[in-house]
Amino acid sequence: MTESACELCTGPGGRVLWQSAECRVVRVDDPALPGFCRVIWGAHVREMSDLPRSERQRLMAVVFAVEAAVRELFEPDKINLASFGNVVPHLHWHVIPRWRDDRHFPEPIWGRLQRERQPERPPVDDATLTRAIVRNLPEGE
Amino acid sequence: MTESACELCTGPGGRVLWQSAECRVVRVDDPALPGFCRVIWGAHVREMSDLPRSERQRLMAVVFAVEAAVRELFEPDKINLASFGNVVPHLHWHVIPRWRDDRHFPEPIWGRLQRERQPERPPVDDATLTRAIVRNLPEGE
Repeated sequence: MTESACELCTGPGGRVLWQSAECRVVRVDDPALPGFCRVIWGAHVREMSDLPRSERQRLMAVVFAVEAAVRELFEPDKINLASFGNVVPHLHWHVIPRWRDDRHFPEPIWGRLQRERQPERPPVDDATLTRAIVRNLPEGE
Repeated sequence: MTESACELCTGPGGRVLWQSAECRVVRVDDPALPGFCRVIWGAHVREMSDLPRSERQRLMAVVFAVEAAVRELFEPDKINLASFGNVVPHLHWHVIPRWRDDRHFPEPIWGRLQRERQPERPPVDDATLTRAIVRNLPEGE
């Protein structure tokens, strides 16, 4: 896939909450999984092991800051982290809050549907989530 | 889940290729996905953000060493990385080689089956895979 055909090169890939010169955090509009975010590397890179070690560490520090923020604000039963890129081979991480009563638990969200009902969860606005992410970033990010 | 009921506290969780004082790499016996490994944290910890930053970095360095080794030896079309723990909430990472003609591609391996046929891939023995992992670890691991 060339960069001109890559949806993460040509568009933001979601509602941008935070960005640096290297990467961005977008919020995924999934009412079943409020707080679901993606961390997207800026350059069109396929795999983590294509990045130098320092860049890997900085990307993962953002992923873990999002994880910490989502835990604080949404109190999920579990966090799921995943980097696939089978469809869009441009490095990005899914940070997914999971609840025991969500529609796929304990399956991954790509697995078989376990229940139809979708419990209501308290809303958290973008500004509050962004502040929590920034608070959890290491110094200097 | 208590540690005494956790299968990753009471057993290795696979065939151990490498271990340190903190974590281990096990090989998953999946003939459809040769090279599939898991990196399992030793202590019964639920989330990455429950670890101090230095331990997170060391765990991810092992995950990325496995990724690099699997790319070298198995030449997959893509690497998939995931940490779920919905069933066994004890920190572990899946490092999964993916091929365009594997049974689930481009879905995650937890998704819908895409094709029945399972192509043969050249075998790589445990010793060769272990050496490649060790070669890709940062100095001092």
